[in-house]
Amino acid sequence: MNEYFSESVDGFQAIRFDGQRLQLIDQRRLPAEEVWLDVGSAEQAGRAITDLVVRGAPAIGITAAYAAVLAARQRGDDLAGWRADMRQLEQARPTAVNLSWAVRRMCEAVEQLGRLDPESLAELAVSIHREDIAANRRMATLGSELIESGSGVLTHCNTGSLATGGIGTALGVIVAGVRDGRIARVFADETRPWLQGSRLTAWELARADIEARVIVEGAAAALMASGQVDWVITGADRIAANGDVANKIGTYALAVLARHHGVRMMVVAPSTTVDADTASGAAIEIEQREAGEIWRAAGLEQAPTGFAAWNPVFDVTPAELIDAIVTEQGVFEPPYRF
Amino acid sequence: MNEYFSESVDGFQAIRFDGQRLQLIDQRRLPAEEVWLDVGSAEQAGRAITDLVVRGAPAIGITAAYAAVLAARQRGDDLAGWRADMRQLEQARPTAVNLSWAVRRMCEAVEQLGRLDPESLAELAVSIHREDIAANRRMATLGSELIESGSGVLTHCNTGSLATGGIGTALGVIVAGVRDGRIARVFADETRPWLQGSRLTAWELARADIEARVIVEGAAAALMASGQVDWVITGADRIAANGDVANKIGTYALAVLARHHGVRMMVVAPSTTVDADTASGAAIEIEQREAGEIWRAAGLEQAPTGFAAWNPVFDVTPAELIDAIVTEQGVFEPPYRF
Repeated sequence: MNEYFSESVDGFQAIRFDGQRLQLIDQRRLPAEEVWLDVGSAEQAGRAITDLVVRGAPAIGITAAYAAVLAARQRGDDLAGWRADMRQLEQARPTAVNLSWAVRRMCEAVEQLGRLDPESLAELAVSIHREDIAANRRMATLGSELIESGSGVLTHCNTGSLATGGIGTALGVIVAGVRDGRIARVFADETRPWLQGSRLTAWELARADIEARVIVEGAAAALMASGQVDWVITGADRIAANGDVANKIGTYALAVLARHHGVRMMVVAPSTTVDADTASGAAIEIEQREAGEIWRAAGLEQAPTGFAAWNPVFDVTPAELIDAIVTEQGVFEPPYRF
Repeated sequence: MNEYFSESVDGFQAIRFDGQRLQLIDQRRLPAEEVWLDVGSAEQAGRAITDLVVRGAPAIGITAAYAAVLAARQRGDDLAGWRADMRQLEQARPTAVNLSWAVRRMCEAVEQLGRLDPESLAELAVSIHREDIAANRRMATLGSELIESGSGVLTHCNTGSLATGGIGTALGVIVAGVRDGRIARVFADETRPWLQGSRLTAWELARADIEARVIVEGAAAALMASGQVDWVITGADRIAANGDVANKIGTYALAVLARHHGVRMMVVAPSTTVDADTASGAAIEIEQREAGEIWRAAGLEQAPTGFAAWNPVFDVTPAELIDAIVTEQGVFEPPYRF
């Protein structure tokens, strides 16, 4: 359906755009149902980002770029209205760095041209999408080449086609590594509390015909002790200038367990994830979420009296526990200089 | 209601017996509902054990002892019938060492007397229950004394009044430590895949008016890095002669993370848990469970195509990662000699 997109896409394409219409698979309803949402306006796109229809930093950025095209078609000559749409869109998930980055790129193009041209904006949005696909491919190749034949890997959260525009970051390395015959065993953490592993990564791997086994986080140490894992491979939400990595809660635990077991740790993320303004992980504030996602899993419909949780979204893995950081620009090893 | 039980019981009493009637709180329905089941026969007691109405090795043993009394009242002079009931009961959960231990003690008493005497069997069952209460108290005191004032603790699974006859093993130490003013912060792993932590431990602690926070297993490393935890305290399913500990999946991960962060690791279990016939953890076979409890958590009603799991029930923590093993006989430290 993608006229603007003649290139063949690696993996599953979770974001579809034909120049007029944006379609997103509703990730909240996976894996039980594959429901596609038609997105006709920037406002709808913003809501889809806020409501987690689409998640994953690169996927959010691409969605925002396409949303800017939809807004340009709607606004016609109303440049001020379009700018207001963009300010609104940028608020959809304030912490997502790729969201503001994509909106900024679309705004700069409009300012340069001095008017709204939906066709040139569509070309730019598609090129942002293409850049992500190419970056994914490059990371997949570079990461896969680090892995010895016959290896087992363990991943965390979801970093595949649902989270990016292409084959994925960490999951892209795994897909490439399996196809190259380097990876013989794939394990995925279910990734509490949101279960991105058992809901999304398992679904993506099944769709790609890759055999994988899901584990509860508590089983990761026993799995490593069993000798079935050679690499832990994860994505990153933010990488500090010294190589400290903020990523989904549980990543740091895997890094400590990996080091204890002689398992190596690889982080895969586009170079835009490296934040030169953050000197180290100590400067990264860790967001806490409410307890509901924990007590609801325990079968409760409302908060029980006295129930509290310590429920951070991210953790920080110190650079010294990471054996390789792979971006589309190359493979970095400690001490990290990007 | 417990005529046979004049002694005051520490904590919540999950097993009630008045000489005629056995009552069990249905742990499958906690924390949403507190439902008590009346158990009138050894067959019903066996089913309650099989169906996980009651769980936790000491609690299963006590339930079996009371079930032997119920069977004696029903069988009258039919000693052969009673023996058949006992063989049946012992099958309720074949791997639970306390189950066969309790049944054996009841059988030995009957063989010595040469006939079924419900009153003397009831006295023996109550004394088995009392022994567990006393052992729990002793462990709670010994374990609590190891903890410095102002400490934070993290526990795993459920090891309290629901799993034992008294105040509990690891959770008993925590309750005692909070009451003694030694423990200032309590954290509990939710304990996937069964969620004993968020379902049962959180319920018990709230009932005991102890403030606690539940975490997902993935957050344990970040919690330790934050400096809020000084001791990890868990129970044990089996302790090998060298001090290796088999316990709920996730315990070994906590032990590795604790060592990395300078957090100490305490295992609390009655001396009957020490298995002199098992030289080391390498001899302990780890049971795997089916994938259902993982994909059902992901919101799926039936097994998705290609979904597989690596889902062991237990893991083994090597003795060298454990700083103290507390039984009712004392505090053991490495190298372990029981």
